[in-house]
Amino acid sequence: MKRKIFDMLKDAAGNFVSGEEIADELKVTRTAIWKSIQTLKKFGYDIESRGKLGYKLNSMADLLLPAAVQSGLNTKIIGVKMIHKDSVESTNKLAKKLAYEGAADGTVIVAEEQTGGKGRLERKFYSPRGKSILFSIILRPKCLPKDAPKFTLMAAVAVANAMQRFNLPAQIKWPNDIMFDDRKVVGILTELSAQIEKVNYIVVGIGINVNIERKDFPDDIKKVAASLSEINGGEISRIDFFRAVLEECDKLYLMINAEGFGKIFEQWKKFNITLGRKVKVISAETDESFFGVAEDIDEDGALIVSTENGRQTLYAGDVSIR
Amino acid sequence: MKRKIFDMLKDAAGNFVSGEEIADELKVTRTAIWKSIQTLKKFGYDIESRGKLGYKLNSMADLLLPAAVQSGLNTKIIGVKMIHKDSVESTNKLAKKLAYEGAADGTVIVAEEQTGGKGRLERKFYSPRGKSILFSIILRPKCLPKDAPKFTLMAAVAVANAMQRFNLPAQIKWPNDIMFDDRKVVGILTELSAQIEKVNYIVVGIGINVNIERKDFPDDIKKVAASLSEINGGEISRIDFFRAVLEECDKLYLMINAEGFGKIFEQWKKFNITLGRKVKVISAETDESFFGVAEDIDEDGALIVSTENGRQTLYAGDVSIR
Repeated sequence: MKRKIFDMLKDAAGNFVSGEEIADELKVTRTAIWKSIQTLKKFGYDIESRGKLGYKLNSMADLLLPAAVQSGLNTKIIGVKMIHKDSVESTNKLAKKLAYEGAADGTVIVAEEQTGGKGRLERKFYSPRGKSILFSIILRPKCLPKDAPKFTLMAAVAVANAMQRFNLPAQIKWPNDIMFDDRKVVGILTELSAQIEKVNYIVVGIGINVNIERKDFPDDIKKVAASLSEINGGEISRIDFFRAVLEECDKLYLMINAEGFGKIFEQWKKFNITLGRKVKVISAETDESFFGVAEDIDEDGALIVSTENGRQTLYAGDVSIR
Repeated sequence: MKRKIFDMLKDAAGNFVSGEEIADELKVTRTAIWKSIQTLKKFGYDIESRGKLGYKLNSMADLLLPAAVQSGLNTKIIGVKMIHKDSVESTNKLAKKLAYEGAADGTVIVAEEQTGGKGRLERKFYSPRGKSILFSIILRPKCLPKDAPKFTLMAAVAVANAMQRFNLPAQIKWPNDIMFDDRKVVGILTELSAQIEKVNYIVVGIGINVNIERKDFPDDIKKVAASLSEINGGEISRIDFFRAVLEECDKLYLMINAEGFGKIFEQWKKFNITLGRKVKVISAETDESFFGVAEDIDEDGALIVSTENGRQTLYAGDVSIR
C-alpha cells in the first residue's frame, strides 16, 4: 500500500492529494493511509499533511526505497521483490540468509550503508552512506556450479548497459570490474550455494560508486577508485541509475533463461578492455602469477591467456593490464 | 574427558577400573569422573559402577558416539572434530549451518537417525535407526566451485577403500554411487558454498546402508537398494566401518591437498563399473536423455560419453548401465 500511496503522491507532482481520494482509490481506511504516510516519512520522504487538502510530496529523498524504486520499474523477475535496509553488515550476507530461507528468484536487497562490505578476494569495499548503490540480487537459475561465474559477467554487462543509457562510456576488465581511467567504479561479488547437480541460489552483490567525489575517497583507495559522477562530470540520480541496472539485469537474465549465455558473451566482449592486451595474471587457484596476452574468453567465461609456456585458462583471479 | 575415560574403560576390556586410578591418570576430581560416566550412560553405554571397584564397561552399544569413534581413530583432519546427534532432519543441513558458523575443516556430523534425509536429485534417502551410517563431512579445501564434483569422487573412493579393508568388493557407478548387484549401497550428496574465486566450504553427506536386511527395505526401495551386510553375508560393526571410512577419507584428502586429484582419479577408475559400458544418460543440465558409450572421465571428473552425435561431456546427471 505504501507504494501505491507513494505513486499517487508522486503522480500529483507537488500538488495535494486528499485522504478521501486515496481512500477511494485504494479502498482502505483513512487511518490506514495515515499510518502508511507516517512510515514513508520515517523513511525520509518529506510529505506535508494539511487538514482537508490532504498530503503532498515536497521533495524526493534520494533513498533507494522499494516504493520509490519499483515505481515505474519495468522488470519481470529482478526487483519484483525488494527489501530495503538502512544499514547492514553486507547486502550479500543478508541476501544469502534470505535465499537460504527461501526468498524468491530475483529478490533484491538494497542498503543505504554497509558496515562490513567486502569485494572479491576479501578486499574491503568503501561505501559511504547515500553516495553509492549497494545491493544484492538473489538468482535461482537452473544451472550447475560451474556456470556461476557467467552470472558475474551478466552483472557487469547489465551495469555497462545501464551506463550507456546515461551516455557514460563503460569498460569491463575481466571478469567483472567496471573501470574508468584505470580505476574501479563498480565492484561485483558473486556467491553461490549449490549441489553438484544444481545451483540452489546465486547471490550477485553489486556496489556502484555513484556520487563519491574523488577527494572524498580515503587515500589508499583514491588511486584505484572512480565514481559515475566523475565520468559524467556531475551527480547522477542513484534511484534512476539503480532502476536502469535492475532493468538491464532483468533483460539479460530472461535472455539467459531462454537462450543461454551466447549473447551475454557477445555484449561482454563489446565492453571489454582486457582481450588483446598484455596482462599480468594472478591465479586464484594456484596463487601463481604469470604474464601473457589475453586472447579470448571460453564457453565458461574463463580467460584464455597465451603465455611463453602455451595457453593457460584462468577460471578466477586477478588481471592487470600492462 | 569423556573420551579419555571411555578409552580407559575400553582398554580394561571388561575389568573394573577404580575411580582413583582414573582420577590419577586424568588429573581430575572423582566428582568430575562420576559426571562423565553419567553422560556416557545416557548416551547408551552399559557402564557398571560398583563401590570401591570402580567402573566397568559391560557392553559396547553400537552407537556412533565421538568418544567411541575417535578412540583409535587414525586421522589428521577428518573427524578430529566430531558432533553426534541422535536424530536430525539431515546431517548435511546441520553441517551447512555449522560450516556457515565457522566449523573447522574436517568436522564430522553423525546422526543415528535422519527424519528428512535426501539423496541426489531430491530423492528421499531411507535410513532406519541403528542400521545405517549417516554423516556429513565439512571440508575447506583451497579450490574453485568447478572443483567441487571431484570431492564427491573422493568420497566414493574412500568408501570403496574402506570396503576393501573389510574384504567387500566395491563397485562405483559414475559419479559416486557404490553398487552391489545393480543396487545402491551408499548414497553421497555433496553441497557447496562458494565465491567465484574460492570455495567457502564443501559438505559431503554420506549415507551407508550397513545392516539393513533386504526384506526390511520398503517395497519401492527394495529393487534399488542393498546393504553392506548383504555383500558380507553377515552384520558389520557400524563403528568399525565408520572409522575405516573416515581414515580412508582423511588419507585421500591429505593427498589432494598435497598433490591434486590425479591419484583419486586412478583409484576411482579401478573401482568404476561405468567406463567402457553402454549407458543411458540423463543430463542434470538440460534434462535431456541420450545413449552412448561411457569412454572416460576428464580432468574435472566429468563423464565423456561417445554418442551418435559425437562426444558429449556430462558434468552432472544420472547414468544407467544397459
